[in-house]
Amino acid sequence: MKKKVNAAILIIGNEILSGRTQDKNIAFISNWLNTKCGISVEEVRIIPDKQKTIIENIRLLSKKFDYLFTTGGIGPTHDDITAQSISKAFEVKYEFHPEAFEILEKYYGKKRFNDGRKKMAKMPRGSKLIYNPSSAAPGFMTKNVLSLPGVPSILNSMIENCKRYLIKGLKVHSKTINLYTVESNIAKNLGQIQKKYKKFVDIGSYPFFRLGKIGVAIVSRSTSLPKLKSVNRELKKLVKLKKIEILKI
Amino acid sequence: MKKKVNAAILIIGNEILSGRTQDKNIAFISNWLNTKCGISVEEVRIIPDKQKTIIENIRLLSKKFDYLFTTGGIGPTHDDITAQSISKAFEVKYEFHPEAFEILEKYYGKKRFNDGRKKMAKMPRGSKLIYNPSSAAPGFMTKNVLSLPGVPSILNSMIENCKRYLIKGLKVHSKTINLYTVESNIAKNLGQIQKKYKKFVDIGSYPFFRLGKIGVAIVSRSTSLPKLKSVNRELKKLVKLKKIEILKI
Repeated sequence: MKKKVNAAILIIGNEILSGRTQDKNIAFISNWLNTKCGISVEEVRIIPDKQKTIIENIRLLSKKFDYLFTTGGIGPTHDDITAQSISKAFEVKYEFHPEAFEILEKYYGKKRFNDGRKKMAKMPRGSKLIYNPSSAAPGFMTKNVLSLPGVPSILNSMIENCKRYLIKGLKVHSKTINLYTVESNIAKNLGQIQKKYKKFVDIGSYPFFRLGKIGVAIVSRSTSLPKLKSVNRELKKLVKLKKIEILKI
Repeated sequence: MKKKVNAAILIIGNEILSGRTQDKNIAFISNWLNTKCGISVEEVRIIPDKQKTIIENIRLLSKKFDYLFTTGGIGPTHDDITAQSISKAFEVKYEFHPEAFEILEKYYGKKRFNDGRKKMAKMPRGSKLIYNPSSAAPGFMTKNVLSLPGVPSILNSMIENCKRYLIKGLKVHSKTINLYTVESNIAKNLGQIQKKYKKFVDIGSYPFFRLGKIGVAIVSRSTSLPKLKSVNRELKKLVKLKKIEILKI
């Protein structure tokens, strides 16, 4: 029987922490895991390129969750220390992966396969490759940790190649109703509905502004489709009672 | 004498974790702290709207860093539990803040000041208000924890009102050179420069794609302007040596 499967994401990179670069990988990975694999992301951390910090977080998060995704730090430069850090975290050797070496040597050609490029073939012993259709350098999976690059376009091109390594979980269904009202107008009733369906459905309420009007998106999420439908019926009753306009998208 | 001051950011919200909403607050807050206050963000966590998880993270991160910023969970609905959770984390009463109550009562008018709206005036005892020029409901600072709303436009309008509560740190200067080359072409030399200036300057290397060409942004960061300039001179030497084209933006 399928069960709930969860994951964490560890973003490794000073450029995200400093606010220089807007992260796009969290939403992408989380969405993909949710919709394609039935896996819920339950924690995300963004940390600097410091070996000690990376090791601590790899150990902790890989133990706490079914899967851990890391992004960033697997390129050729001195600040790319994800592979070394994972080797240390799991106390396994950091060495050339023969297939990764072959892929990269073929891609660059023997002459242009310099030390920086060779570095991208080094990973923790026993890692399985995550193929990279856009720029050759593979990601890798070490125990339950899947390591992907930080550049969003490359990461996006590789994500489907993670699927073979993941156990599918129970799909979380979601249903959104967009209402032209303010949160405080429905807060009490919404709280009552949430209380009634506490065990089965998570109801979230998110304000939005669209075309100069204020609204609230009510998002219900559940692994049970019938329970989700019941909540939806109750929400529609509430909307009718309060004479709220629904925004159809 | 000024010293290094650091901070962490705790994003509270299922909608960010699920990938439904793209976070914009991390880059904004971090950038603002860096450039306006000389404060470096050293860790970010994104967690669900679960009281136990919020309490654990508030305790841990507020102890580990000089300041902790939280976003999300301070609205009127049942899933807004940040204020209660902070009260529990610090074992202080969760109660009406007289000034916040007054502000909100005035904003909504006595008749329309319902229970949901009143909830936004409840916060941990002893909190100081962070005024909200766009939608009245204030944020608050409890010990070293500053709590802001999740909606980016509202958060952005409030950020300047955090300044009075923050001790300014040493400003981190940064310098970026954008090069039309690939990382592996300069990885070795860059590593040598980083090693030489290890104690003073952090050098990061970030690939980019622009107008169909591949490039690398070299970002150097330091609290010492002279050391940053020395690194820059070395980088320019390297660029000349390797005959690399610089992208001027």
